Amino acid sequence: MADPRLVALLDTVGADLLVSADPGYVRMLTGHVADIETGPSVFALPPVVIAPGDGDPVLVCSADEDPGDGGAECYEGFTIGPIDPQTGAAEALRRALDRVGGTRPLVDRATLPVALVGVLPDGWVHADRELAALGAVKTPAEVALVERSIAVCDAGQAAARSASVPGASELDVWTAARHAMETAAGERCPALADLVAGPRTGEIGGPPSDRRLVDGDLVLCDLVPRVDGIWGDSCATWAVGEPSAEATALHAAAETALAEALALVRPGASTVAIDTAARAVIHEAGLDYPHHTGHGLGFHWHEEPRIVPDQDQPLCAGMIVALEPGAYQGDIGVRVEVVAEVVDDGHRVLSRHSRTLTRDGDQPERGGHDG
Amino acid sequence: MADPRLVALLDTVGADLLVSADPGYVRMLTGHVADIETGPSVFALPPVVIAPGDGDPVLVCSADEDPGDGGAECYEGFTIGPIDPQTGAAEALRRALDRVGGTRPLVDRATLPVALVGVLPDGWVHADRELAALGAVKTPAEVALVERSIAVCDAGQAAARSASVPGASELDVWTAARHAMETAAGERCPALADLVAGPRTGEIGGPPSDRRLVDGDLVLCDLVPRVDGIWGDSCATWAVGEPSAEATALHAAAETALAEALALVRPGASTVAIDTAARAVIHEAGLDYPHHTGHGLGFHWHEEPRIVPDQDQPLCAGMIVALEPGAYQGDIGVRVEVVAEVVDDGHRVLSRHSRTLTRDGDQPERGGHDG
Repeated sequence: MADPRLVALLDTVGADLLVSADPGYVRMLTGHVADIETGPSVFALPPVVIAPGDGDPVLVCSADEDPGDGGAECYEGFTIGPIDPQTGAAEALRRALDRVGGTRPLVDRATLPVALVGVLPDGWVHADRELAALGAVKTPAEVALVERSIAVCDAGQAAARSASVPGASELDVWTAARHAMETAAGERCPALADLVAGPRTGEIGGPPSDRRLVDGDLVLCDLVPRVDGIWGDSCATWAVGEPSAEATALHAAAETALAEALALVRPGASTVAIDTAARAVIHEAGLDYPHHTGHGLGFHWHEEPRIVPDQDQPLCAGMIVALEPGAYQGDIGVRVEVVAEVVDDGHRVLSRHSRTLTRDGDQPERGGHDG
Repeated sequence: MADPRLVALLDTVGADLLVSADPGYVRMLTGHVADIETGPSVFALPPVVIAPGDGDPVLVCSADEDPGDGGAECYEGFTIGPIDPQTGAAEALRRALDRVGGTRPLVDRATLPVALVGVLPDGWVHADRELAALGAVKTPAEVALVERSIAVCDAGQAAARSASVPGASELDVWTAARHAMETAAGERCPALADLVAGPRTGEIGGPPSDRRLVDGDLVLCDLVPRVDGIWGDSCATWAVGEPSAEATALHAAAETALAEALALVRPGASTVAIDTAARAVIHEAGLDYPHHTGHGLGFHWHEEPRIVPDQDQPLCAGMIVALEPGAYQGDIGVRVEVVAEVVDDGHRVLSRHSRTLTRDGDQPERGGHDG
């Protein structure tokens, strides 16, 4: 049967099926976890979901990725013969479209390759903004998957904190974090990460480099792994050695901003009000941050609901929000982040990692069902 | 000025410019290294190269990725305002097309998103097979980059071998390999990898799992990192503890097959003859392998020239070939791989990693200019 969120989307935009090569929507609608870590493959186009409003979705993928449940239309992938996934994928998409029917597809035009456009019915439409909200409200099973991904983040945060000793490089700390995450997940995890130390923390983020930690450095660690196709996210900032008074002040401001924002998270809450509450704390300290206060996540590392100054919407139960205010001043920066589920009576914090500024500080209270 | 390889391709297919969102061709023609490790971004479409046959290429990318040399047409990327990279990228592509002129683009239809197709001149063409050969022959500067990526592979192989002790998990070995590669590269490296041990080696490949090594296991380690946008590749197989007689025989067969194939690598050599020479050794042992004998690499982890049974072509100086015959029997498997540059008087082996079956065996002779 069709996902009710999909049915609502198709109704809104006047389409009768969705065609998307977005790995998030492929995961949401078919369960298939697409490879994403190594860019386009010469042997295959990205997996595509064809999801009608009145029946089961069909996955179009190479035979190498066939889930084997009879639900997919496949074409030859890895081969020692001639390589032609463009033709293979187009033919498989045609079969999938024949199978599901429908004459007016909503096309995810950001991800579908041009090689497949010739197979689409002429009446195809796009609706990027509406499509972006498809997965914002999660089912309980999906929330449980996000919670698992957040637990993987927690393991990474603990390992990164522990590895942040003078002489270790940012890449060393990153390796410790990634190893802990992959061990907790039992599999390789694609991951986005800011891992910057010392003066680089003032730049807000960036990938780990070979710069070595020295006493007094801050380490800003934002870990965003994908586990079983579902993205987690978390951030903490700690000091190598004794934190400076300035770092302590920035950390206090960021923590207060996070607490103020989190306190508002409940069904019906205004995303702009949440953004404003967090930003006001940082403004009081004479600072600002150039990024969102928060965002949804799960099928993508950034999705609806966005917590930004000018895009207001009410939160709903089942939404997942990451909140991540920051305080940056000159060459030091602090950011803290937790992920929460919006529940009927408020929110439930899923993140359990330490956010203390001292590297071996006590684990904070979890702040569970505290909405 | 236009790359002469591009000019030749456009002439062959009757086009006057190339439009591709393939990160390999973006790297080859503009130098830009696209992010690939975390899948599609909500804030940007993949970077696109627009390369005319009679002038400089133009990069179309989000402002976050602007190389800052004035050569790119950019659109808003990360933002706390409304997100609309589909429109932004299409408008930037239109500006790029106006800048370079041309009315008949060769379109890389496997990678270009449908969101951009409406901006293309109606006369656009595709030619997947011809396009696939664009980067097969490397310039000396590109060969030097491949050599650096192979040195990164070497570092990973040494670390993986060293970490392969009883009790370590495949993910532990993988972490050691990746840490060594990223440390050698000084940056995070996207990487494809087979890292399987024990009975999993009979399955030819697969990602590292949480399975722990035991005495007598084989470890098959195929590392394919991208360094500064250029892919390396290498494989070795070693035993944890004393290798069995069966493993020793498989290893000897794979090494002989590799040597026979490598001995033929020179300008004008037939790719089918190389494939046949390697496969014959394995056939003599009563076995076969279900994959290619080898392939080109550099801009992609698998590119032309392919070394397969039925696609004959002569090698040329400047081509890069990875040779990787394997011997698999029941639940054990061995594969060995080196990368060589085709040079005027034969070939030059770029790989320097150990391929001995005993884990602490002596490093083999490099087998340098031995073609």
